Amino acid sequence: MAIKIFVTGGTFDKEYDEIKGQLYFKQTHLPEILKLGRCTVETDIQTLVMIDSLQMTDADRRKIVISCTECIEQKIIITHGTDTMVETATRIAEARIEKTIVLTGAMIPYKFGSSDGLFNMGCAVGYVQTLPFGVYITMNGKYFLWCKVRKNRVTGYFEELR
Amino acid sequence: MAIKIFVTGGTFDKEYDEIKGQLYFKQTHLPEILKLGRCTVETDIQTLVMIDSLQMTDADRRKIVISCTECIEQKIIITHGTDTMVETATRIAEARIEKTIVLTGAMIPYKFGSSDGLFNMGCAVGYVQTLPFGVYITMNGKYFLWCKVRKNRVTGYFEELR
Amino acid sequence: MAIKIFVTGGTFDKEYDEIKGQLYFKQTHLPEILKLGRCTVETDIQTLVMIDSLQMTDADRRKIVISCTECIEQKIIITHGTDTMVETATRIAEARIEKTIVLTGAMIPYKFGSSDGLFNMGCAVGYVQTLPFGVYITMNGKYFLWCKVRKNRVTGYFEELR
Amino acid sequence: MAIKIFVTGGTFDKEYDEIKGQLYFKQTHLPEILKLGRCTVETDIQTLVMIDSLQMTDADRRKIVISCTECIEQKIIITHGTDTMVETATRIAEARIEKTIVLTGAMIPYKFGSSDGLFNMGCAVGYVQTLPFGVYITMNGKYFLWCKVRKNRVTGYFEELR
Repeated sequence: MAIKIFVTGGTFDKEYDEIKGQLYFKQTHLPEILKLGRCTVETDIQTLVMIDSLQMTDADRRKIVISCTECIEQKIIITHGTDTMVETATRIAEARIEKTIVLTGAMIPYKFGSSDGLFNMGCAVGYVQTLPFGVYITMNGKYFLWCKVRKNRVTGYFEELR
Repeated sequence: MAIKIFVTGGTFDKEYDEIKGQLYFKQTHLPEILKLGRCTVETDIQTLVMIDSLQMTDADRRKIVISCTECIEQKIIITHGTDTMVETATRIAEARIEKTIVLTGAMIPYKFGSSDGLFNMGCAVGYVQTLPFGVYITMNGKYFLWCKVRKNRVTGYFEELR
Repeated sequence: MAIKIFVTGGTFDKEYDEIKGQLYFKQTHLPEILKLGRCTVETDIQTLVMIDSLQMTDADRRKIVISCTECIEQKIIITHGTDTMVETATRIAEARIEKTIVLTGAMIPYKFGSSDGLFNMGCAVGYVQTLPFGVYITMNGKYFLWCKVRKNRVTGYFEELR
Repeated sequence: MAIKIFVTGGTFDKEYDEIKGQLYFKQTHLPEILKLGRCTVETDIQTLVMIDSLQMTDADRRKIVISCTECIEQKIIITHGTDTMVETATRIAEARIEKTIVLTGAMIPYKFGSSDGLFNMGCAVGYVQTLPFGVYITMNGKYFLWCKVRKNRVTGYFEELR
């Protein structure tokens, strides 16, 4: 059974605009990432939005929830900016969808050569195929239930809430 | 609970000797890989051997089995050359150790910039924390029970046996 | 005879701050770049300022001119942001220093893996050892006399003035 | 006036065969290298042979000499394995061609991410546009007249003969 991958932007997919000297979004690197990982799991990638997660609106989150609900797959990975990843996970959890949904992201853009994105995507591919129905976040090798995690904005790491 | 990582060499850790123009082993890149992945899961890395898996002897495999048996951790990742990974997995399975043991490797050396190793290690970290006791191989995003897999030497991919 | 390398910042040395999600300066990557190029030419690297060249003040430029005048070496490379590289070159030229001075930079930060910086630094090392006294800019494989060049802000490339 | 680039293989263009676990040649990365360097100098790339320089025969060297003689360009860069680079340079010099010919190579394959190739190619592009007619080798930032250089096989660096 295929894994659905919803792309929403985030640091994962940021690129460097050499004319303006700024970071921006062009298109997702997910196909390239999965190819680099020589991933043979069947996946279907769909870009929902392409934004910094601080810009994510209620309408964007509704779109994500509806997409998770309506897609045929039961295993879903969502790439997402880390700043509001927990908020989006919460919104999805409230919809009580009977699927395994794993949100992940990166602290360093994939295009910058030394990104944590390839590792996090590996973890997500592992977790989404083994965890029971529910909404999870995986970052830095760990996985967290949506209601048991927060991002530590000082260190940049996700921590378990007790 | 920490994850034990046993390093045995394989393509994963091959480097390029610029004087001789050949591939060789120096020391494992596992600490570097986990740092790149910003991995916060507690791990304990131990190098058992540092060889091409075609060179692996019965004595090497006994050493791996004993190490798996005797270590305190219940979650074990083994990095291993792909050519005889299934053979080593079989030997470990015969020892009926009550732990989750995941073997993984890479088709392209980590040092070569475009390696599948970081992705495979992400998958391994995910699977070892979620799968029940048993011996598994993860490559290319998938996981396989030790007795249900073979490496296709033509394509370089691991395939499920039915 | 050694080459003096004055570092002033610019895109060359920008890094990604994974906590703030912004580009910033930490310290120069010049030693790392020369090591990667296995450069055996004797060099002496000195950081004068570490700024975006749009922020460069008259005082900064005076400091650069004085440093070029006073250093013992007759071959000087200056790494510099591209936006005001021509302006700084002009200021140096006005000082009529009897040395070969080559300014170079990058459109993409060295740390981002796919930078033009390593190539440009190679060109600069070549030009500084062969061109007669004067102030030059090298970008994209070409070299330009300071008074015969402008940056095309639309394409990001340097062009010869006729 | 365009620069002619003759490709002959060497470490520069070696790749890793993930099925056989060996190094091999596919096709040159020169276009990719020049694109990465955002090189705007007009170049014309032609592959003459694609071999390890230890395998280079008299016939191969005759082909290189004839190609240098007959091409329309007066500035020529030759990418070449380092082991017999001096020998080929000598053969070219014997032909007394009135052009600037610069041989360069790499100690680490370009595809391996941390190659000296991009830097060496930058140097070659600089030297070929500034040096007078003659046959030169550039490696590690330095340039050498063909008759004043040898490769130190222990250190891997090229050294000036006195």
